[in-house]
Amino acid sequence: MEPGAFLLSLIVIWVAAKLFGELAERFGQPAVLGEMVGGVVVGVSGLHLIDAHEPTLHLLSELGVILLLFLIGLETNIHSLLKVGVAAFAVAVIGVLLPFGGGYAAGLSLGYSTIVSIFLGAALTATSVGITARVLSDLGNLDTPESQVILGAAVVDDIIGLVLLAIVGTLARGGQITAGGVSKLVAVAFGFVVVAIVAGSIFAPWLVRAVGRLRVAKALLFSSLILAFGLAYAADAAGSAMIIGAFAAGVVLARTDKGHQIEREVHDIAQFFIPIFFVMVGAAVDLRTLNPMTADGRRYIMIGLVLAVIGVLGKIAAGWGARGKGLRKIVIGVGMVPRGEVGLIFANIGLTTGLLTRGLYSSVTLLVMVTTFVGPPMLRALVTPKPRQEIPPIAAHVSEAMTDE
Amino acid sequence: MEPGAFLLSLIVIWVAAKLFGELAERFGQPAVLGEMVGGVVVGVSGLHLIDAHEPTLHLLSELGVILLLFLIGLETNIHSLLKVGVAAFAVAVIGVLLPFGGGYAAGLSLGYSTIVSIFLGAALTATSVGITARVLSDLGNLDTPESQVILGAAVVDDIIGLVLLAIVGTLARGGQITAGGVSKLVAVAFGFVVVAIVAGSIFAPWLVRAVGRLRVAKALLFSSLILAFGLAYAADAAGSAMIIGAFAAGVVLARTDKGHQIEREVHDIAQFFIPIFFVMVGAAVDLRTLNPMTADGRRYIMIGLVLAVIGVLGKIAAGWGARGKGLRKIVIGVGMVPRGEVGLIFANIGLTTGLLTRGLYSSVTLLVMVTTFVGPPMLRALVTPKPRQEIPPIAAHVSEAMTDE
Repeated sequence: MEPGAFLLSLIVIWVAAKLFGELAERFGQPAVLGEMVGGVVVGVSGLHLIDAHEPTLHLLSELGVILLLFLIGLETNIHSLLKVGVAAFAVAVIGVLLPFGGGYAAGLSLGYSTIVSIFLGAALTATSVGITARVLSDLGNLDTPESQVILGAAVVDDIIGLVLLAIVGTLARGGQITAGGVSKLVAVAFGFVVVAIVAGSIFAPWLVRAVGRLRVAKALLFSSLILAFGLAYAADAAGSAMIIGAFAAGVVLARTDKGHQIEREVHDIAQFFIPIFFVMVGAAVDLRTLNPMTADGRRYIMIGLVLAVIGVLGKIAAGWGARGKGLRKIVIGVGMVPRGEVGLIFANIGLTTGLLTRGLYSSVTLLVMVTTFVGPPMLRALVTPKPRQEIPPIAAHVSEAMTDE
Repeated sequence: MEPGAFLLSLIVIWVAAKLFGELAERFGQPAVLGEMVGGVVVGVSGLHLIDAHEPTLHLLSELGVILLLFLIGLETNIHSLLKVGVAAFAVAVIGVLLPFGGGYAAGLSLGYSTIVSIFLGAALTATSVGITARVLSDLGNLDTPESQVILGAAVVDDIIGLVLLAIVGTLARGGQITAGGVSKLVAVAFGFVVVAIVAGSIFAPWLVRAVGRLRVAKALLFSSLILAFGLAYAADAAGSAMIIGAFAAGVVLARTDKGHQIEREVHDIAQFFIPIFFVMVGAAVDLRTLNPMTADGRRYIMIGLVLAVIGVLGKIAAGWGARGKGLRKIVIGVGMVPRGEVGLIFANIGLTTGLLTRGLYSSVTLLVMVTTFVGPPMLRALVTPKPRQEIPPIAAHVSEAMTDE
């Protein structure tokens, strides 16, 4: 891309993000919903101003979601997270099993093969931790017990999703799945988080002390970013996901005595990249494949809506997996609804391996869109937004409450 | 580039920038010198960890220099700049004529053709406004009258450099130069700045007022970035340079009543990108072409050093073009010395059009390196650094003094 075209793309992304973000807020919706709608408007389904597959924009959008999860990690108190650990795990597991079973059954009853049905089930399992966390922080609600359960369950879901993705990918390429192989995938994916947090908790205070002796500008910020990107890279290399590594880095640094300062400085940088991610999610949505004027189009719209209903109900039911403590189970369930980018990754693997026809791919895209776009307004209707404080959205304002708890 | 490789590249760039920036500061040098040295170490002349031609990294480095000039513009008081306008213009013109004449004469006396000699002269004319401004701001000296002259002259130099680049490019491709064509180039390049500042001064207060009514997060920051990138794009499209457009946007926004707030918020973002630019400048330096073990290598090293001496002396002499007011002319002259990226762009055009042999290309690269690396320490020796204030380097700390003048 030429530098001029690059600048124009950034201008289009920010105008879309801020214009539709503003509209969303005026309609009482989270800004992130507006950013995704803005992305649809300027993307492949609308004005064609942004190419969601342009390599540099794609990398910047990856940077956006990595920084978002780093920031969410920095605002997370590991003790509060562990306190709701059992509830979060139950929600995550139920929230994988129910939609998977429902999608698989729907696939079989529609006459699709076992493997295609497994794929449809798998595409229903993921939760987009990025979208949900962003909505909760837009609403100033990241510090409630419900939000802690959602966050924990979404991270577990992401890890399960990665394992399923690897399994489905192997099946799609005609490979064999062994119990040993699956166990290894699960062990690596969960093990990475445990090792990263334990090792990081030992290393981070040392890093913060060493950086305190440097004279160069912004040494603390850059050391923190280097740790976050380093763990994101390591997570990817270990077979986990970059966002999990970035989240772990945030959790670890939040516990050091410079946690608040790091969070403030990362927040200033992250706000530059985060809207790029959400606009790009919207820009990648291709509405043209779902033409209600044709019989095929109507069929795939119907399949997509059936999958979406299964997806929404399955996740809401999973909320009841969170036992006790007066938790609002409906909030937790609704918080798990958005599928977002993870669902789209599933859909793309299905399409490129030839497992999904273009029509069925559109159905999965529709499912992802519906769950992603109905989640935020439903959550908004259920929780009371807290007033903004001096540091604006993207969750920064709730950090005080959480880290001092 | 894969996301993992992208994260690793950013880690390498920041480690190089901050490690060598720290070393530079401990040796009493500006951090930017360390960043460029760090770039040489990790780039093509050293560890080969960074590819200076990788498209995404290149775009981010462009973003770095655009944000740097936007920030410098935000810290510039248009009235102080106009007050030194005549002096700055004289310094710029002399600083173009002397090195150009010297380089041309040197080329002819070494037996090169007229066109190659013109090219060598042209490559000596540019001043890297980015490097000089960054050094002055690292030293907390951006608000002195000398710095204002340097800044003004460097901007004028950049514009003259663009015109020369267009002329030399045409000559290199065998085209003809007409007086009318040159006049038009000059008119467009200077006219853009005037139009941008006049139109911007009318539009900017309206923009700031309109943005004040928005609810969405960081509306002022993003509107400012959109204006800066928009003017950068327009400058490029009009035949001027992106950095000139970004500088103009900064100058215009500095005059609004939100100037200080914009500056603080842009500063937080810019610090993420600016080191990428300087590390990439260093990473692009290829020392391998200058092998002192061969007769050819020694010859091209000699030519490069002769050009460097002409370049340094010509710019220092230009400092005497700034008349009156007790200005320290030697500071102004030395401030004009670094050629930086602009010189490298000249060299690359020479190489790709076949005007420069690979050997002569290395000589020009050496000239650029010498002027770029001797400038900052010389300037450091001549000026007294001012103590840091709460907002760290990259010039932000001097804004108070300037904008309230």
